[in-house]
Amino acid sequence: MATFSIDPRLTAGNHAVADLELCAVRLQDDVRFPWLVLIPRRGDRCEIDDLAPSEQGALMAEIVRAGVAVRAVGLALGRPVEKLNVGALGNITPQLHVHVVGRRQDDAAWPGPVWGVGTARALDPEALQVALAAARQALAG
Amino acid sequence: MATFSIDPRLTAGNHAVADLELCAVRLQDDVRFPWLVLIPRRGDRCEIDDLAPSEQGALMAEIVRAGVAVRAVGLALGRPVEKLNVGALGNITPQLHVHVVGRRQDDAAWPGPVWGVGTARALDPEALQVALAAARQALAG
Repeated sequence: MATFSIDPRLTAGNHAVADLELCAVRLQDDVRFPWLVLIPRRGDRCEIDDLAPSEQGALMAEIVRAGVAVRAVGLALGRPVEKLNVGALGNITPQLHVHVVGRRQDDAAWPGPVWGVGTARALDPEALQVALAAARQALAG
Repeated sequence: MATFSIDPRLTAGNHAVADLELCAVRLQDDVRFPWLVLIPRRGDRCEIDDLAPSEQGALMAEIVRAGVAVRAVGLALGRPVEKLNVGALGNITPQLHVHVVGRRQDDAAWPGPVWGVGTARALDPEALQVALAAARQALAG
């Protein structure tokens, strides 16, 4: 059985939220955007089609659940999400991971993509706890 | 029954490839990247969770098929794909659409995302026919 570990570049600057059936879910510590990252808990996967077909379907279902959670984080922080952005890139960190980001017309990168734009600004400790609680409640619901 | 039409911004600078069960598939006319866009043939959808759950699963399956086709286009044009990038953004054009882009370390935007970077350069007519044929063959296979 393949071992699973998360590339340290995917756990820098973010926090564990929950483990879903397929994916580990992490919250980016960035006040600019409500932003979750899904990391399939399987070893050595780089592309979506490195997953089995049933896992590909599970990944889509978890992307949708993460979108609900990102909207909940935005609401909890007083900045309701207007559009979701979903991206699987992996050009810098090849281990398969999917970004689910809540966007607003007044955010720091609109209408461009968030990846590689500017510098993350950490949430203050209280807001981080609010965001984690909102994400966990939404994922459990 | 909801009518379906494609936002003209999603048909500018690209070419029809095929209609899959869920999505219309179009090839971006950009020599910099082998790049397909999937547009679910349903009216008034902006987010993935505006689709029914079964359609969400079909979308993931068609994303995977599009990835195979993007690799085929890269090979046919003599620039094999090294990494797939998948993105559903919609910040500029809200109608639901998914980009499937073939990336290489020597491409014009590596390792950043392609969206909003530089200016598309059209394929020459012969290369366009080669790319369309490769995409159609892969999607039919």
